[in-house]
Amino acid sequence: MVETFEGGVATPQGFTAAGQYVGIKAPGRGLDLALVVSDRPAIAAAVFTTNKAQAAPVVVSKAHLAVSQGTTRAVIVNSGCANACTGAVGMQDAREMASLTAQLVGCPAEQVLVASTGVIGVNLEMDKIREGLPATFASCAADQGPAAARAIMTTDPFPKEAAARLSINGSTITVGGMCKGSGMIEPMMATMLGFITTDAAVPQPLLARVLKEVVDDTFNAITVDGECSTNDCVMILANGASGITIDEQSLGAFAEAVRAVCLPLALGIVRGGEGATKLITVNVTGAKSTEEARRCAKAIANSPLVKTAIHGGDPNWGRLIAVAGRAGVSFELDNAEVTIGTIVLFKDGRPFDDAAPQAAAYLQHKEIIVGVNLGVGQASSTVWTCDLSADYVRINAEYRT
Amino acid sequence: MVETFEGGVATPQGFTAAGQYVGIKAPGRGLDLALVVSDRPAIAAAVFTTNKAQAAPVVVSKAHLAVSQGTTRAVIVNSGCANACTGAVGMQDAREMASLTAQLVGCPAEQVLVASTGVIGVNLEMDKIREGLPATFASCAADQGPAAARAIMTTDPFPKEAAARLSINGSTITVGGMCKGSGMIEPMMATMLGFITTDAAVPQPLLARVLKEVVDDTFNAITVDGECSTNDCVMILANGASGITIDEQSLGAFAEAVRAVCLPLALGIVRGGEGATKLITVNVTGAKSTEEARRCAKAIANSPLVKTAIHGGDPNWGRLIAVAGRAGVSFELDNAEVTIGTIVLFKDGRPFDDAAPQAAAYLQHKEIIVGVNLGVGQASSTVWTCDLSADYVRINAEYRT
Repeated sequence: MVETFEGGVATPQGFTAAGQYVGIKAPGRGLDLALVVSDRPAIAAAVFTTNKAQAAPVVVSKAHLAVSQGTTRAVIVNSGCANACTGAVGMQDAREMASLTAQLVGCPAEQVLVASTGVIGVNLEMDKIREGLPATFASCAADQGPAAARAIMTTDPFPKEAAARLSINGSTITVGGMCKGSGMIEPMMATMLGFITTDAAVPQPLLARVLKEVVDDTFNAITVDGECSTNDCVMILANGASGITIDEQSLGAFAEAVRAVCLPLALGIVRGGEGATKLITVNVTGAKSTEEARRCAKAIANSPLVKTAIHGGDPNWGRLIAVAGRAGVSFELDNAEVTIGTIVLFKDGRPFDDAAPQAAAYLQHKEIIVGVNLGVGQASSTVWTCDLSADYVRINAEYRT
Repeated sequence: MVETFEGGVATPQGFTAAGQYVGIKAPGRGLDLALVVSDRPAIAAAVFTTNKAQAAPVVVSKAHLAVSQGTTRAVIVNSGCANACTGAVGMQDAREMASLTAQLVGCPAEQVLVASTGVIGVNLEMDKIREGLPATFASCAADQGPAAARAIMTTDPFPKEAAARLSINGSTITVGGMCKGSGMIEPMMATMLGFITTDAAVPQPLLARVLKEVVDDTFNAITVDGECSTNDCVMILANGASGITIDEQSLGAFAEAVRAVCLPLALGIVRGGEGATKLITVNVTGAKSTEEARRCAKAIANSPLVKTAIHGGDPNWGRLIAVAGRAGVSFELDNAEVTIGTIVLFKDGRPFDDAAPQAAAYLQHKEIIVGVNLGVGQASSTVWTCDLSADYVRINAEYRT
């Protein structure tokens, strides 16, 4: 019923987008200002970082959503500067980004949401944004989603877009989205920047519920390096341009369409994680609760020893057991089981090392699945991560140079 | 009152040690069997890993301490194989290591403690130990502490020994120790392998109390990569050969002597952490409680983004704030302060970026202090870690090859 296809944030009816270079990044580092506009007031919902050091754009977007009661016309995003830990000046800058955009779009300032990503602790060069924003607005078009997706990138090696459509009573609604990674990634009840649009009409409480549910199993189920940013947010705008209204009956199918957009975007962040060469799916089963399964899967996905072993193609399953044992979850060594791909390497309290060469051959693939059964219950959870390479160190040792 | 000097585990009176190659490691990778013997029954105390996947030697040593009520004659340690996740065979092997040693020393098996370190999930080659142990025992001598310290190494770049002496009522007691690192290091209520000896006589409850207190601020206050091993333990043996008995009155001075041995050993693990090029002291102040200060300091010390920035000499203080904000502790951005060395980079809610060049110059040093004031209370904690380099990745991607 849900069909994915090539598209992005400007693919649903009534949305346009733009991506431009205005001079916030150093020259040659790519576009740095993105704009998404709905041709009519859209209903919006968002989830934000739980980091207590919240960036100015996070504070401003939250306030705007509260004042507008979830009505939004546009989202303005810059890369190259996070506008985080920037004091009163930073707050003023985030508010000005919104009000300048509102003047161009023709709406109240609180109907504009703001997001920033880049270096923490540096003030925005507002003159660059003041100067560049009119041209960015002028270039907004339905085919400029790819430019917007490029303009929100920092160390991301490639842009991330997705789209899905769904037929409801013979009419079609479309969901589109874009996001960026690619370091400081372990979203907590939020994620890095993600922007989802749909031309369905969705009442705000339903939209907020769908977003929270979907984000929990997609953007919140990935980790690159266990770091939760000051700027994380995922926003969804539903403008109703399709003429279709989502109700309780069609909510499940709508959520499926949103998930069909969010999951590839989230996996795109992991695939494009800093220095990543492999996508790793971590399945934890046999847990006492879903919460414990998730906690253990996150601990495995963040383990530098697991990530370096997989990077090196070493089926060192002992590291998986060692993490499960320290993850603070119920765990029975004698009932536990470790698999790499479908190959069992530890079961019934003892190693199966004859299978190691087969597991080593499997680890040459680009997409790896590892499984740990905790041996104490029925609950499970899946988390996605990437391997840890020397390139991650290089990228982050030189980030500001 | 406490004086440190060059020495190790066989420096206190009545102790001998040995380190030999018996063939557990591949040839050319160094010694692999260490033995510490007291010439009389010593009182012992130990702290062990809290990992739920406990290695066979941990299980056996705990049982022996319980049966012997803390009376110990010898400690036998192998490197190159952790004897963890090795099932019933592994348990039998750990027990046999103790009983073979007991036969040579001439004591009950439960008066021997056992420790192993190396690859998880591989069974010990017991024939090598059976064959090599008599020669190892024969080589025990008071000047062989350095050989024992080398024989417990895995990826450690250098051996770690320390000694301290203390005058009590005109007589001298001595404390000696050795330990090994250097990956899978974030001890939790325990640490990697550490062995402390003293010729003081110390009642078991006092010895256990001193060990726990000292370990908490030394071995438990370090982290290399946030990984808690299946084999961690610190053991202390007090054989009374000095003729001095520690009582409540001299306990403080004795604890200071034990700390004078444990702290340089713990810092040695960090300095020799896998791929480490810098020793980083993380001071968290202004916290609501000591527990929150410690949790935040550990989060900073385990942050790959903080560790790579310091590796690259980048005074990227925003990463310190971002970790403090996500560490799950009370934190007020507007009252917070970040220092690198003594240079203030963030205070009163705003950056002091003019100081960045000075901070970058400071980061060229080998020993770095970073400070975060959480701005909410009076409690503080110090944790030590190392930087994260591409060599850490290389070492762990190739660990078993």
